[in-house]
Amino acid sequence: MVILDHELRKRAAMISGAIEDLLPVVHPRELYSAGRHLVDAGGKRLRPSMLLMAAEAVGGDPRAVVPAAVSIELVHNFTLIHDDIMDNAETRRGRPAVHVKWDEAGAILAGDTLYSKAFEILTASEAKPEEMVASVKMLARTCAAICEGQWLDMEFERRDEVTEDEYLEMIEKKTGVLYGAAAWMGATLAGAPVKPAAGLERFGRLVGMAFQIQDDVLDLTAPAEVLGKPRGGDLAEGKKTLIMIHASAKGSKIEIFGKKNASSDEIEAALTTLEACGSIDYARKKAVSLVEEGKEALAVLEDSEAKTLLLELADYMISRSY
Amino acid sequence: MVILDHELRKRAAMISGAIEDLLPVVHPRELYSAGRHLVDAGGKRLRPSMLLMAAEAVGGDPRAVVPAAVSIELVHNFTLIHDDIMDNAETRRGRPAVHVKWDEAGAILAGDTLYSKAFEILTASEAKPEEMVASVKMLARTCAAICEGQWLDMEFERRDEVTEDEYLEMIEKKTGVLYGAAAWMGATLAGAPVKPAAGLERFGRLVGMAFQIQDDVLDLTAPAEVLGKPRGGDLAEGKKTLIMIHASAKGSKIEIFGKKNASSDEIEAALTTLEACGSIDYARKKAVSLVEEGKEALAVLEDSEAKTLLLELADYMISRSY
Repeated sequence: MVILDHELRKRAAMISGAIEDLLPVVHPRELYSAGRHLVDAGGKRLRPSMLLMAAEAVGGDPRAVVPAAVSIELVHNFTLIHDDIMDNAETRRGRPAVHVKWDEAGAILAGDTLYSKAFEILTASEAKPEEMVASVKMLARTCAAICEGQWLDMEFERRDEVTEDEYLEMIEKKTGVLYGAAAWMGATLAGAPVKPAAGLERFGRLVGMAFQIQDDVLDLTAPAEVLGKPRGGDLAEGKKTLIMIHASAKGSKIEIFGKKNASSDEIEAALTTLEACGSIDYARKKAVSLVEEGKEALAVLEDSEAKTLLLELADYMISRSY
Repeated sequence: MVILDHELRKRAAMISGAIEDLLPVVHPRELYSAGRHLVDAGGKRLRPSMLLMAAEAVGGDPRAVVPAAVSIELVHNFTLIHDDIMDNAETRRGRPAVHVKWDEAGAILAGDTLYSKAFEILTASEAKPEEMVASVKMLARTCAAICEGQWLDMEFERRDEVTEDEYLEMIEKKTGVLYGAAAWMGATLAGAPVKPAAGLERFGRLVGMAFQIQDDVLDLTAPAEVLGKPRGGDLAEGKKTLIMIHASAKGSKIEIFGKKNASSDEIEAALTTLEACGSIDYARKKAVSLVEEGKEALAVLEDSEAKTLLLELADYMISRSY
């Protein structure tokens, strides 16, 4: 894990440097500043790092695909900016959300601009034109799927019942596919054949879903200091996570579900109930099994340092505490 | 003009049929219905028609680039959906705006989805991979420029002074470049060399700018029945069009500029002032000279039926009365 941490930091620094070069703040400067606001706030750059590791795992030169890695990070940030408008979120990564610091119109445009630059920057990767066209198609399909996932997420909030399959479809689209696309594009742009690229896509997608489930678990179990917000926010907001779907199937009643002003005592009591009926454990196990399935998909790859890193990254996705 | 009209209708029908095939209403159906809402309301499909004509003008088969034409139309509609949110517009093409019929979150996502599908559908055109990559890059840069144009447009509303050059930059980005990209992509995907493609890009861009200036003129001069809204809306909204910039330079005072509840009598009086100081004529002449410049850029092309149609289309852009 110490090695993974070091390797992730190395790649995150590489991505941040490339963003500086590939997405300069140009005229109209205020638009590009708004676009860079969240991007510059950091984050762990897990998605672009996965792209670089995938390229290495098929024997490619990661430096050739740095622009593609940046494009994945920009797509991720574009979706965060627009999601924050839709969800009325005030802060993100410890900074005011873009629509708070600017306004809604500015945030819509900043997101659209990042999205446009993502496709432009992608084409700056060194790859065969056929592989580039395939990557553009993959990224575009992925972005459409992310929109579908966000639509489902909002629709679920208005519904009484959501099944586990529906929830899994939603997180696959909202979170899984971008990790899958990152891994697939890293491999494909590096010239990998169809089979290892497909294995990496499956790996990224499943591990990305596990990442989202872990997020739901952490929302309930991590200390507020670590979360940077009060524990149990999803409960108070009435989010139909896998944990809640399991509890509901078990007949467990969580009275404060959707109660925006629930006290911390009420939330702790709900948490005890969810622990007791095994719902948190159920979600944890689901995340573990997705990671196991994802790791199996890497069996198509020959052993390499990069493959080891990817396997460690998969474990990190669900062992992380923030 | 009768011929142009017939040829435009033929191509518009081709585009509408292709949209049906390439952008079906799939799960989640409500998201794709929201995406199709404006697209299905019609419009003249001038941008995709220009793409098809450009392909023909360089000797290409327009059927091979129909997906690219659809992608241009989807990008156009994506920008309309987001612009309507930013501008608080209630209606568009005689229908409620997407954010009115659904809500803002739905409209943001419907726009993002159209944008994603535009890039995916573009890759379905029949073309060499090198030409496809070049077209993706052109479309992505164009979309970033459109965002810059919309940002400038909003910024100008908050400013006291806007110069003619600034205004021209704004409409070049907001309207010109998408016509330019359409013409360039039609030619490039059909295998045209750099020079005719560049001529067509310049043609589309300048003619697109003229189209926007004509829009400003029509807002003041067309009957309300034709506009589908009261005359002089731009005046009441305080939009700094070329007409207003000219009037201001001439020292003409338009008292009701930016007065949202101006009466129709007040607007007619302002119109008389603008006519008298030559501002409307100035804008008309600017549009004519942009069209002339644009047509000259087509000198690189050999004569053909498609070239004649493009030249007629250029004239139509500023002779149209709606």
